[in-house]
Amino acid sequence: MKNHKPTILVVNDDDIDAPGIHALISVMKELGNVVVVAPDTPQSGMGHAITIAKPLRLDKVGLYEGVEMYKTSGTPVDCVKLAVNKIFKGKKPDLCVSGINHGLNHSINVIYSGTMSAAVEGAIESIPSIGFSYDDFTYAADFSKCLPFVKVIAQRVLEHGLPAGTLLNVNFPKTDTIKGIKICRQANAKYAEEFDERLDPHKRKYYWLTGVFQNADKGEDTDVWALDNYYASVVPIQFDMTAHHAIPLLNTWKFNEEK
Amino acid sequence: MKNHKPTILVVNDDDIDAPGIHALISVMKELGNVVVVAPDTPQSGMGHAITIAKPLRLDKVGLYEGVEMYKTSGTPVDCVKLAVNKIFKGKKPDLCVSGINHGLNHSINVIYSGTMSAAVEGAIESIPSIGFSYDDFTYAADFSKCLPFVKVIAQRVLEHGLPAGTLLNVNFPKTDTIKGIKICRQANAKYAEEFDERLDPHKRKYYWLTGVFQNADKGEDTDVWALDNYYASVVPIQFDMTAHHAIPLLNTWKFNEEK
Repeated sequence: MKNHKPTILVVNDDDIDAPGIHALISVMKELGNVVVVAPDTPQSGMGHAITIAKPLRLDKVGLYEGVEMYKTSGTPVDCVKLAVNKIFKGKKPDLCVSGINHGLNHSINVIYSGTMSAAVEGAIESIPSIGFSYDDFTYAADFSKCLPFVKVIAQRVLEHGLPAGTLLNVNFPKTDTIKGIKICRQANAKYAEEFDERLDPHKRKYYWLTGVFQNADKGEDTDVWALDNYYASVVPIQFDMTAHHAIPLLNTWKFNEEK
Repeated sequence: MKNHKPTILVVNDDDIDAPGIHALISVMKELGNVVVVAPDTPQSGMGHAITIAKPLRLDKVGLYEGVEMYKTSGTPVDCVKLAVNKIFKGKKPDLCVSGINHGLNHSINVIYSGTMSAAVEGAIESIPSIGFSYDDFTYAADFSKCLPFVKVIAQRVLEHGLPAGTLLNVNFPKTDTIKGIKICRQANAKYAEEFDERLDPHKRKYYWLTGVFQNADKGEDTDVWALDNYYASVVPIQFDMTAHHAIPLLNTWKFNEEK
């Protein structure tokens, strides 16, 4: 651990009043000086959206257990951008933690999740970043079983940092006894979408997005496997989305010989 | 090329009336049967957002040059989900193309871009998918120089398919003569954010997100280099965000010995 007391940015996507972010704040207060920037309304499923077509609000709100808190009209990613630029003013925090999300963000959820996208944005800003999520989407979720693991993972990241361009996606199973921590890869799973079709009072159709999570990945090194077996999953994530392995193949297509 | 006439889903993020999507439709009509599903309002910067907290509209609109077109109140990713589930009803198209975006989506833009996220969603649905973007964000952008390249790239993907879990991010420079196509990796660049701070008529602060693109990546194998040198860039992209190279390092942290 560095000698100075670390500065920790806490963000989420469920909004500033969610029990999950309060649970995360309670642990981070033991590790450093905490600043919270969170959306003023729920932003689940916002992915890496940023607000460019309308202006943003950023308001300091009352202290929560002595912690400086700001709420914004923006997305989870906007929270990180606003924190870095308007609150830290370029002097970056030592750690960015996002969550604890009410609901899992394992496997392909990493790409839809506002919680994880906020952590990705922290990593883009070269801040060691972690997203935390728990397998209970209810407002009344009890995060207490997760907290010792949240603490040790955050401590390790504060001690060691993370490799450039990477962050951690941490998910907790809902169980009486979390068996330990597994370092995993993202399972190759997806949603089978369904749209609930309804008629409005004017007899016009509208749709609600629903979906069923489908995992065809039988690997025992995945986050889905770890959670199914009562382990906390830790997946290192990167924002270089290049499929490096596909470059040699595409070069065999010899585009420029036909142009 | 397969013997049957391919079915091609065309989506975008700039909205159904944007000249960029009409340019893309004009090329795709030469290659197959085209179905368009696009947002009813601009959705730039929406990333991989999905609409879960409010219902979606999906309306068939008048034919454009004989092509079946739908507009939706949803995000670019919602367009793909709605197309697969409500229009194609599970019989997937042979190709999903997104764009042509008014403005580049090279480097880190892949993660903020609605155009690219729609193509990523196509790939998640196992549809060969390509996002196209052009270095002119104006409404009056002239896409004519891009179109021969759009056609040949789409043809190759229809012929060969793409490796599982991958899609293409294609960007075009603004130049009189595009020199050819380069297969690239995503440059390691980012935005330096700034927020334009203003006062509303009630003297309350609000902010507009702005930013300057900063490329510190000197590689000559990147999309930024290709575009700066008047080549069209083609980056294979994957939605497995696992930083596989970081897994051995994290295993040395021996989390479970301390719990």
